[in-house]
Amino acid sequence: MSTLSALHGSPAGLLPQPYLLFLGDTTEPGYAKTAYGLRDWAGDMCLGEWSCGATVSTGLPMLTPEEARTRGAHGLVIGVANAGGFIPDSWIAALVEALEAGLDIVSGMHMRLADIPRLAVAAERLGRRLIDVRTPPRGIRIASGNKRSGKRLLTVGTDCALGKKYTALALARAFAMRGVDVDFRASGQTGILIAGSGIPMDATVVDFSAGAAEMLSPAAHAQHWDVIEGQGSLFHPAYAGVSLALLHGSQPDVFVACHEPGRTHVLGHPEFALPTIQQVIELTVQLGQRTNPAIRCAGVSLNTGHLDADAAQELLARTATQLGMPAADPMRGGESFDRLIDAALNEQAGA
Amino acid sequence: MSTLSALHGSPAGLLPQPYLLFLGDTTEPGYAKTAYGLRDWAGDMCLGEWSCGATVSTGLPMLTPEEARTRGAHGLVIGVANAGGFIPDSWIAALVEALEAGLDIVSGMHMRLADIPRLAVAAERLGRRLIDVRTPPRGIRIASGNKRSGKRLLTVGTDCALGKKYTALALARAFAMRGVDVDFRASGQTGILIAGSGIPMDATVVDFSAGAAEMLSPAAHAQHWDVIEGQGSLFHPAYAGVSLALLHGSQPDVFVACHEPGRTHVLGHPEFALPTIQQVIELTVQLGQRTNPAIRCAGVSLNTGHLDADAAQELLARTATQLGMPAADPMRGGESFDRLIDAALNEQAGA
Repeated sequence: MSTLSALHGSPAGLLPQPYLLFLGDTTEPGYAKTAYGLRDWAGDMCLGEWSCGATVSTGLPMLTPEEARTRGAHGLVIGVANAGGFIPDSWIAALVEALEAGLDIVSGMHMRLADIPRLAVAAERLGRRLIDVRTPPRGIRIASGNKRSGKRLLTVGTDCALGKKYTALALARAFAMRGVDVDFRASGQTGILIAGSGIPMDATVVDFSAGAAEMLSPAAHAQHWDVIEGQGSLFHPAYAGVSLALLHGSQPDVFVACHEPGRTHVLGHPEFALPTIQQVIELTVQLGQRTNPAIRCAGVSLNTGHLDADAAQELLARTATQLGMPAADPMRGGESFDRLIDAALNEQAGA
Repeated sequence: MSTLSALHGSPAGLLPQPYLLFLGDTTEPGYAKTAYGLRDWAGDMCLGEWSCGATVSTGLPMLTPEEARTRGAHGLVIGVANAGGFIPDSWIAALVEALEAGLDIVSGMHMRLADIPRLAVAAERLGRRLIDVRTPPRGIRIASGNKRSGKRLLTVGTDCALGKKYTALALARAFAMRGVDVDFRASGQTGILIAGSGIPMDATVVDFSAGAAEMLSPAAHAQHWDVIEGQGSLFHPAYAGVSLALLHGSQPDVFVACHEPGRTHVLGHPEFALPTIQQVIELTVQLGQRTNPAIRCAGVSLNTGHLDADAAQELLARTATQLGMPAADPMRGGESFDRLIDAALNEQAGA
């Protein structure tokens, strides 16, 4: 995972890395997605795990906050959610113990850490930080629309929750392995925990959303790439606004269209048919041209996790033929993914 | 102006109407736009004006807060802005006097009233409200996308600040004069002061913006019309996100495209050419179909205030011919405006 360190490009990391991952008292693996994502994508920033009675595990060494602090940890990350998205009373003593061991606490949950009196008091007493990564930074400005130097890639999608973050992470890692100077730019809470910085686009005030996207991928040298995590979908009845603001503010040179084969309707909105990949590509080009007339699609990312290898290969080949562009599953890698990278970087296939 | 009372359709008005308009110590008429807008569009809700040394005037009776309270006023509205968008110290004594007279204070400025300690203390002591109409209501939900009963018209535009609010107000007033059951739905602070309720769309958190638009124009009986004030432009490099969220959440049956003839570039963004009216119509239909497949354009509203009557008439006729639909200046009214209303209500021309 060491190549990912190259992706933690923001000044010294705004978040207190490396982390100790906290699993609470979680018994349901589905609730530990954040911890698994951190292990998979920022493994070199995760020293171990700790819990107060969890049965799930990331496989990382079990460390107390004091042991983790001794080994260099600076933050305890709440790596699990529960059904209500809140922090139960049964976790508080453990969280206070982490503060006392010298760790800051980092959360991507809806509930604010500082709204829990016992945590607020302990953090104040110990001079530790309570960091809610769903809170946008101060000082976001209205978007200027001005062209910035450097190159940008944005992942877009037919819907929410189908692989835009993983695709961006995989692309950034692959760019770095080719020697490209690249930063992964996180636009959601899990991505921010992985990258150590970023802006939670969905929590910005709408008048400032495009400005937040501009701030997220600042001007850079001409050969530098930002690979930006997409949000929502231009066809989503609730979230199209954030997708358009992110597209306009990111002014991407290149985008990759993400889709989960078999999904037919918008998640949670069964009355809305999913757009086709082709429709997403066309609308992204049409609207993206407003801030970057040269925008182009590099190809398609399919989340084929539910298919066996042969079926996935067949689907990727068929999609590539149908759309006339590379189609890959970044989690499977392989030649099709190489072709997608080639197309994104505008290099000769096989170069 | 009494027809406008019919437009204050929200339950009992969330704002403390009728108003006394406060002009501060303003000497520059351009800074008193909010007061003029209230006089012009909610004249029956404005009992008088008051100031602490202003030279501008709305022409309404000069009343002290006590006199206004005696005549039935419930709120003092700050009807002026200044260059910095803040409330100067020199106004505070006057505002406290209004609280003491029994008036709530209503502001559409960026600065929060409750952040001014002397006002906060006085309001607390006197049991009066400090109301910032830029603050969105609580309880906004994620948009469902579900079709709501009743009919909706949205004003859209080629840019900001060119007549979307005035067009919506004029359309709502004209609908009411034809006996249509109609509510004007305000999406910005001045509109909210005029209507007595509404949601400041630009201040909503982007994930909830389409949901706020759904809340702004709730389900109604089949023959009821909401005429919704538009925001921004789908082509605006900073504000397209709010425009798209408002379009999706409003799910309008009909829209009117607003433009200011002669404007060639986006206000404050000289590098961005203004889209044509035709482009705005096509993109609004294309994107609006996502939540209302039957969306249609009723016609065009041109802000011809800078032209003489003949030139305006000629331009409106030419625009109508070019686009094949009614084109009117609602501030001028006349037959072309009647045709726009006919088209919006889908009635025979001249009916």
